[in-house]
Amino acid sequence: MIKRVIALLTDFGVEEHYNGVMKGVILKINRNALILDLVASAKSFSIMDAAFQLWASYKYFPYETIFLVVVDPGVGTDRQPLVIKTKNYFFVGPDNGVLYPAAYEDGIESVVKITSEKIILKNRNGTFDGRDVFAPAAAYLSKGMPTEALGQYTEIKEKYVFPEPIINNYSIKATVLHVDKFGDVVLNLRKEHINDTSKKFIIKDKNVQIKATFAECVGLCMVFGSSGFYELALNQGSASDLLKIKTGDEIEIEIV
Amino acid sequence: MIKRVIALLTDFGVEEHYNGVMKGVILKINRNALILDLVASAKSFSIMDAAFQLWASYKYFPYETIFLVVVDPGVGTDRQPLVIKTKNYFFVGPDNGVLYPAAYEDGIESVVKITSEKIILKNRNGTFDGRDVFAPAAAYLSKGMPTEALGQYTEIKEKYVFPEPIINNYSIKATVLHVDKFGDVVLNLRKEHINDTSKKFIIKDKNVQIKATFAECVGLCMVFGSSGFYELALNQGSASDLLKIKTGDEIEIEIV
Amino acid sequence: MIKRVIALLTDFGVEEHYNGVMKGVILKINRNALILDLVASAKSFSIMDAAFQLWASYKYFPYETIFLVVVDPGVGTDRQPLVIKTKNYFFVGPDNGVLYPAAYEDGIESVVKITSEKIILKNRNGTFDGRDVFAPAAAYLSKGMPTEALGQYTEIKEKYVFPEPIINNYSIKATVLHVDKFGDVVLNLRKEHINDTSKKFIIKDKNVQIKATFAECVGLCMVFGSSGFYELALNQGSASDLLKIKTGDEIEIEIV
Repeated sequence: MIKRVIALLTDFGVEEHYNGVMKGVILKINRNALILDLVASAKSFSIMDAAFQLWASYKYFPYETIFLVVVDPGVGTDRQPLVIKTKNYFFVGPDNGVLYPAAYEDGIESVVKITSEKIILKNRNGTFDGRDVFAPAAAYLSKGMPTEALGQYTEIKEKYVFPEPIINNYSIKATVLHVDKFGDVVLNLRKEHINDTSKKFIIKDKNVQIKATFAECVGLCMVFGSSGFYELALNQGSASDLLKIKTGDEIEIEIV
Repeated sequence: MIKRVIALLTDFGVEEHYNGVMKGVILKINRNALILDLVASAKSFSIMDAAFQLWASYKYFPYETIFLVVVDPGVGTDRQPLVIKTKNYFFVGPDNGVLYPAAYEDGIESVVKITSEKIILKNRNGTFDGRDVFAPAAAYLSKGMPTEALGQYTEIKEKYVFPEPIINNYSIKATVLHVDKFGDVVLNLRKEHINDTSKKFIIKDKNVQIKATFAECVGLCMVFGSSGFYELALNQGSASDLLKIKTGDEIEIEIV
Repeated sequence: MIKRVIALLTDFGVEEHYNGVMKGVILKINRNALILDLVASAKSFSIMDAAFQLWASYKYFPYETIFLVVVDPGVGTDRQPLVIKTKNYFFVGPDNGVLYPAAYEDGIESVVKITSEKIILKNRNGTFDGRDVFAPAAAYLSKGMPTEALGQYTEIKEKYVFPEPIINNYSIKATVLHVDKFGDVVLNLRKEHINDTSKKFIIKDKNVQIKATFAECVGLCMVFGSSGFYELALNQGSASDLLKIKTGDEIEIEIV
């Protein structure tokens, strides 16, 4: 028996019934679906935040996991509701860029726009496609329905990529991809962007050194984080609060 | 094998072990229960908020789902712990109105007060009936125990209904049933309450137009929401913050 | 077939993918694991808070539940990653005290430091042992792997115990073990610490009486809470906000 995992990533929040209703819709279609929350309360309306968290996570999931991603400020407009089949996974969500970095990295095999009237709930409201379109699509996929039965082949329109840093010998212009619950600030800096980790850096007049763990940080530091990007951090404190920066901000890093 | 869904709706919050402990109690009684969170962190102590979210959600769940609802400021008093069997579902929770709108709509078939000493945990504390009374009741229901084995037949005392708006040709007096994580404000206005959707409205000196989707909102707008009520909304902003209104508030809407 | 429950207690929060990724790692190893959140968003970095919540909860779970506890400010240092087998349960997490009160109470049978290269994920990052070390260890335990196969026997270093109150005829010096979402303040006072419950108390110039339920509180009161400790509470209000106290604070209680 096929028992695919469905992993939800939404910005709906735990105060709301929205995630719960989506699970109800799924279980009504496939009582054997194995549903879990990947992120229940992503940053509201933020494509960048959700795209980053999905990308940082998907590769740790079992083969054929269905990622049901609903961060969808354009719900009800003509943005396409998509199912993307990749080498190892399925991604279900709006064509607004949120699925793209993960799907592209894994290798896109086919893309379908969800249009089947057998899939979409009757009385579709137009403000909650998570419930009316995406959840049923994920549920039918979890039962083994082929992607092409969900609608018609299409092309992805929003091919979102994370911004690249601008680097010279004296400075780095980086972008904040994500701020986590602890206030750790994920930058768009990968291993190869910093070739001398003994260097010192200055951010907003504050000295920053690279450390291997959060516990070694003295004041502000930079740690090579679990997602594969450098993170600004304080030991048991919030780097985000200290620097007053948030997801999407650009910051200047001086190399000294 | 019976494998009923148990959907939790509580105001306990994700910072706490309360929801988790209830799940532990359930699994100790029925390892095959399929437990999920409908709402993990409803507005503290708010009957209206929980009643609304339950009512907006229940119909999307599979037949025979057990809704385990613990928003229970009167825990330990003589308010009745109830199991309500309806046409399609079971509702477990306190007799404070929180279950009533959903149960009434689905069609109440029988009501039992949970009194059986075989069900209620020994050393019942009196401050956490979610753990000591409601979770075990839901667990035994999920194993197929008939409702009448949980206690004795009773009558519902708190027959809570959502307030009705007061409407004339020039104005509407509406009540806020729920404010969601995005700041969207659900009003007690159904489709039939607004017969001319091209009209303009004024709320607290702000112009409001009816739109089909959040993305079309310019400034403050009103959208026919996914629950079947109109919602005040901003495109990617918080209508609740803008208007400084919260669940339970009454607002005056001028029709122009 | 062994289908052990894995209960997660972390301070990662529902805004993040960290808990979700751990679940992905577990399901990749054991698709039949029954995973649930015990606490998804414990107080950041607080050993006391997590130790309290684990201790208050574990006994309600089924035999052989695996508690996967990641409140781990020392991640990447030489603190030991542990599996503790007790009389009825398994506890997986860092050797920083967080597991100790629960494990000690249930009866510790063996302690293993997780070192097996077959268990730990390749490319262990050093900042997210929840994903790279603890989740795989829990997953293998859930498949029935014996604890000794996960590493080598060791001794627990951090034998954390909750602080004891200091009590005389006129006053009590108590410590706040936990503040819950409602603002209820759990003190380190058990039944035996207060032998005359008709006494009146004064905390920060405020009168406090002992009541049986939250609903009976008039102003500030003290209730014997569901965890087995006394709690300061307001009826439908936040005692924590009123008294301006938080987890870890010491408070003076005058007996009058």
